[in-house]
Amino acid sequence: MVHGGDLTEAMARHGGTPQQWLDLSTGINPWPWPIPSDLPPAVWQRLPSRVDQDHLIAVARTAYRVPGGVEIAIAPGTQALIQWMPRLAAPGPVAIMGPTYGEHALTWQSAGHEVVAWDDPGNLPEGVCHAVIVNPNNPDGRVVSPDAIVQLAARLGERGGWLVLDEAFADVEPSVSAVAVCKGLPIVILRSFGKFYGLAGLRLGFAIGAPEIVQRIVAALGPWSCSGPALHIGALALADRQWAEGTRDRLKRQANRLDDVLARTGFEVAGGTSLFRLARHRDALKRHATLARQHIWCRCFEGHEDLLRFGLPPDEAALHRLSAALAEGE
Amino acid sequence: MVHGGDLTEAMARHGGTPQQWLDLSTGINPWPWPIPSDLPPAVWQRLPSRVDQDHLIAVARTAYRVPGGVEIAIAPGTQALIQWMPRLAAPGPVAIMGPTYGEHALTWQSAGHEVVAWDDPGNLPEGVCHAVIVNPNNPDGRVVSPDAIVQLAARLGERGGWLVLDEAFADVEPSVSAVAVCKGLPIVILRSFGKFYGLAGLRLGFAIGAPEIVQRIVAALGPWSCSGPALHIGALALADRQWAEGTRDRLKRQANRLDDVLARTGFEVAGGTSLFRLARHRDALKRHATLARQHIWCRCFEGHEDLLRFGLPPDEAALHRLSAALAEGE
Repeated sequence: MVHGGDLTEAMARHGGTPQQWLDLSTGINPWPWPIPSDLPPAVWQRLPSRVDQDHLIAVARTAYRVPGGVEIAIAPGTQALIQWMPRLAAPGPVAIMGPTYGEHALTWQSAGHEVVAWDDPGNLPEGVCHAVIVNPNNPDGRVVSPDAIVQLAARLGERGGWLVLDEAFADVEPSVSAVAVCKGLPIVILRSFGKFYGLAGLRLGFAIGAPEIVQRIVAALGPWSCSGPALHIGALALADRQWAEGTRDRLKRQANRLDDVLARTGFEVAGGTSLFRLARHRDALKRHATLARQHIWCRCFEGHEDLLRFGLPPDEAALHRLSAALAEGE
Repeated sequence: MVHGGDLTEAMARHGGTPQQWLDLSTGINPWPWPIPSDLPPAVWQRLPSRVDQDHLIAVARTAYRVPGGVEIAIAPGTQALIQWMPRLAAPGPVAIMGPTYGEHALTWQSAGHEVVAWDDPGNLPEGVCHAVIVNPNNPDGRVVSPDAIVQLAARLGERGGWLVLDEAFADVEPSVSAVAVCKGLPIVILRSFGKFYGLAGLRLGFAIGAPEIVQRIVAALGPWSCSGPALHIGALALADRQWAEGTRDRLKRQANRLDDVLARTGFEVAGGTSLFRLARHRDALKRHATLARQHIWCRCFEGHEDLLRFGLPPDEAALHRLSAALAEGE
C-alpha cells in the first residue's frame, strides 16, 4: 500500500494548488493541538539538552501510562523507528499482519529479512522469528486483543524474536494499547505523536517496550535525534489531558458524520479508526477519479479496487463538498 | 572526546541556572539566522511533501555549489548520518583521523567495524577499507587539502571502501570543502546546517557525494526524515547569501578577539575555526575548574590535559566576563 500525505502526485495529474485541494488522503487530525506563538528561541538555537529529553520522556511515560520495568525512547517520528527496527532485530524471517501500512514490509526486506504475509493473530506462521502488527490496523481498523498479543510475544520470545506493535492510531482508542501488558515480553510499541495531535510536520514518535530493545534503539538513534521544537511542543501537548479527551470525542463525532456521508452515497463502511474511514464501493476507483477531478484526494489501494480510505473533513464546508462530489459521481 | 552542548553536567556540579551560565562549550554560531515569526501553520501540521524536500535540495545544491553528477540528501542533523554511515558501508576496518569528534569512532565500533587511529593523511593505514576525516578538524582546525582527499578516496575506492568527510565546520571557510572535487569518487560529505546558522535545535544536515552512497542514505533514512520547520527554515536560510557572507566576517572578527583574550591570559592558541578556538595552557584543567565555578563552561579533553576549547562569546559583556574570569585564575 502506497502512503498518502503527499499531494504532489495529485496536483501533477489534476492541477490545482494545495489550497484548492481537499486532502483526505492522510490519517492526521485536522484540528491540531495549538502551538504557543511564543516558543523560546533556545529551542531553535541550542542543541537539545539531556534535561529537555528527560522531561519529555517523563511526560510521555504518564501520557502513555508506561508501567515500571518498561522503557520509552523518543524518536524523530515513528518512521525513523520503522527504518531502524529491522536493522536492530536478530536475523530471521518476519511475519507482517496485513494488508497494512507498506513501510514495514519495505524496511524489513531492505534489511535482508524474509517477509511472510500473515492474517490470523491466533496462528503465527511456522519458522518466523519476528512479527509486526499495526494495531489498530491501517487501513481497516482491525484490532488484536491484548491477550493475543501477550501470547504471540511469548512465542516469539522463545524463538529469540521481537513483536513490533505499530500503535500509530491508538491514541483515539487507548484501550487498544498493549503498553499495560508488555512488561517482561520482547515487545516494542511505536507511538506516533503527529497523527493524533495533528502535528505531523513536527516529526516526533516514541518506542515503548522491553529495556533491552529500547536501549538498542536509543544507541542507534544517537544523541540529539529530536528537534528542540519537537521536545518542547511534545511535552506541552502530551501533558494536556483535557485537550486529548475533548479531541477523542470530537474525532469520533466527525468520523460518524463522515460515515453518514459515505453510507448516503452508496458506500459500505468497512472499518477504520476515528482518524480515517475505510469504505467499500463496487466502483471505488471510478469514484476516486471523480473526486480527484474535483480536487478531493483520498486513498485507493492497489489490488483492492473496491476500497477507498478517507481522512476526516476538517469542517462543515469540507463535509458538504465531499458529500456533493460523491453524490455527483453516483 | 566527549561532546559538549549540554550544560546538565555543569549545573549538576556547580549549580546555577542556564541563564546564569555562559556556555562556551559548543561550536554553534551565537548569532542565529533570524527565523521569521510567521511560519506557515502547514509546516507543523502536514507531513513534509516531496515538493518541500525537492525545494530545499535545490537551494542546498546552489548554496553548497554541488556539481552535476554529485547527489545530495537531507537528514535530521548530521548526527543521524553519522549513526547510519557505518551500517551502510561494506564490512571492513575504518581509519579515523584523530584526535577528533568522538561520535565517529563510537558508531563505527558499534556497527562492528575495527577502528584504526590515524593522523597522517599522506599515509593511509594498511588494510583499512574506509576512512573518516573531520575537515576542518574539531577541535584543532587541521585541514586536509582537496588533493590529498582525492588521492585518499581513489585508494579507498580500489579497496571497495568509502571516504567520509565531516565538514561540519566548513561553512566558515568554504575553500576547505571537497564538494567541488568529489565527483566520480567514493566520497560522502556531511554538512551541518545548525552550527553555522546558529540553529542547532532545528536538526538539519546534508550528505553530499557519490550517487550510489547518497541513494543508500536516502533509502535508510526513509520518508519524512526532516521536520516541516527544518525544510522551510533551511531553504530560506541557505538562500540568504548576504547573511552568510556577513556572518563569516563577523565570526572571524569575534574569533580574533577571543584569541586576543586567550593570549593576554596566558594561553597559546593552538588552532580551531571561526566557530571555536583551541587553546593550550599548562594548567588548563585548573583554569577549566576556575571558569566552571564562575559559571563559564568550556570544553576540556581526556588525555589532553593542556587543552581547552572555547566557543565564541556572544557579545561584548560575555567577552569581558571571560577575560576577567581568566585573569582572576592566573
